[in-house]
Amino acid sequence: MDKEQNIIDIFTNKFIGDDGAVIGKMVLSKDMFVENTHFKRGWLSAFEIGQKAMLVNLSDAVAMNAAPRFALLGLGIPSNLKNSYILELCKGIKHTAEKYGVKIIGGDTVKSSEITISLSIISYLQNTKEVSRNGAALGDLVCYTGSLGGSLKGLKTLLNGGHISSKSKFKTPILRDKFMKHSAKFMKCAMDISDGLASDLPKICSKFRVKFYKNISKLQWLSGEEYELLFCVSPHNLKRVQNEAKRCRVKLNILGKIIKGKQKTHGKFTHF
Amino acid sequence: MDKEQNIIDIFTNKFIGDDGAVIGKMVLSKDMFVENTHFKRGWLSAFEIGQKAMLVNLSDAVAMNAAPRFALLGLGIPSNLKNSYILELCKGIKHTAEKYGVKIIGGDTVKSSEITISLSIISYLQNTKEVSRNGAALGDLVCYTGSLGGSLKGLKTLLNGGHISSKSKFKTPILRDKFMKHSAKFMKCAMDISDGLASDLPKICSKFRVKFYKNISKLQWLSGEEYELLFCVSPHNLKRVQNEAKRCRVKLNILGKIIKGKQKTHGKFTHF
Repeated sequence: MDKEQNIIDIFTNKFIGDDGAVIGKMVLSKDMFVENTHFKRGWLSAFEIGQKAMLVNLSDAVAMNAAPRFALLGLGIPSNLKNSYILELCKGIKHTAEKYGVKIIGGDTVKSSEITISLSIISYLQNTKEVSRNGAALGDLVCYTGSLGGSLKGLKTLLNGGHISSKSKFKTPILRDKFMKHSAKFMKCAMDISDGLASDLPKICSKFRVKFYKNISKLQWLSGEEYELLFCVSPHNLKRVQNEAKRCRVKLNILGKIIKGKQKTHGKFTHF
Repeated sequence: MDKEQNIIDIFTNKFIGDDGAVIGKMVLSKDMFVENTHFKRGWLSAFEIGQKAMLVNLSDAVAMNAAPRFALLGLGIPSNLKNSYILELCKGIKHTAEKYGVKIIGGDTVKSSEITISLSIISYLQNTKEVSRNGAALGDLVCYTGSLGGSLKGLKTLLNGGHISSKSKFKTPILRDKFMKHSAKFMKCAMDISDGLASDLPKICSKFRVKFYKNISKLQWLSGEEYELLFCVSPHNLKRVQNEAKRCRVKLNILGKIIKGKQKTHGKFTHF
């Protein structure tokens, strides 16, 4: 949202501005997942809502190369929500948390007019430094994992009253945790693509321009909630990262090269 | 809310069930503060909303005898909210955080239909063990700080269209952090009174009965969001705790004594 930058400005300090805040060996991150902003109730099952709420949160930890371990769960529950629905929602959160080795250690439940899932994730850096959004340098290659556009495509289908499969990236983002774990040491900077490439690319290379090697469609530029990794690597480490991608069966795209100049803006993602 | 216990049951583990979760020397806690559940927009100024959201969160850390240091802030903002209002709200959060030595290190801002403030607090135990809700034993004295009833009285006035002063406990809870810091070593167990004495007393002495030394009115029993400390102390440490209370200028009440038997339930607090 537009007002977000104003709010960030009020609280500005050295911890703020990355996917997570680093306190010693700990990385802390938080994402809210709210009905009518991120999803409508009919679009995803209760389980899928819980699952996506957890995945988008874990994505921040992955992008920093931190291992998520604990979570605090804030739940806003409309009073007309049935117990069976709440149970499924919580199962989606719990199942996904357990899959990634995360324990829900506390939280709060309140009445609210819309389903509100507020997760805080406590992650740990594992014998390595965090990968932040800063660090890109002239000559670095800008890469991203997987394919872009699927999330916005799914959203558009849903907005037009259509149905999407449970494999649609809008329903089930794919985390690149294994690839990140093995490639982080070669990365100069990284983040997850949550607001869309157009919004997120300037966050890692605002001081430079990118010479594009790849044609990116408008759909790919604007699609948010992709949760693919966007990162920079120096040319002499490219082969190593490509090998890791192959080993982890992750598609690797070279978006372009960092050159002198200023990045153009390509549009801004907003939730529906 | 009634559904809260069902949700807690799904996630049950050793970390859950206290004011905060203890991970090594760290205590993690989370409280949500939501429009139309905890407050109406006209009742509190934007600054006061931010202030109370932070205070009720810090209260959990105080009750565990942990020093709050960092916070993650999740903000749900209705689209019709003016920038000046959001600024005041954030100032209330920031001012209160700074007063208690807490830094906002990250978070998330989203659009929502109601003002939603979701805070996660990271606190640290200072050369001492946490004070949990467990530990009461036969013969212990059950005590609480301050006066009860003011919060519900304020809420009732507001519900009847009246006005309350900024000193009303409904607007500005009083944290007993200094008293807690000096008295924690004498306490067998402690918690903050957030759901009302009637709901909260059984949480620290569910296995026992309390022989009451003090008459408690219905208003005092049911008033939630008091954020006074409820704790147990062995009789031979009472004088020490009383001395600390005197030194910190905190009123100390001896509610009763823990005896054999089962506690009766005195009613349940719900938000308005």
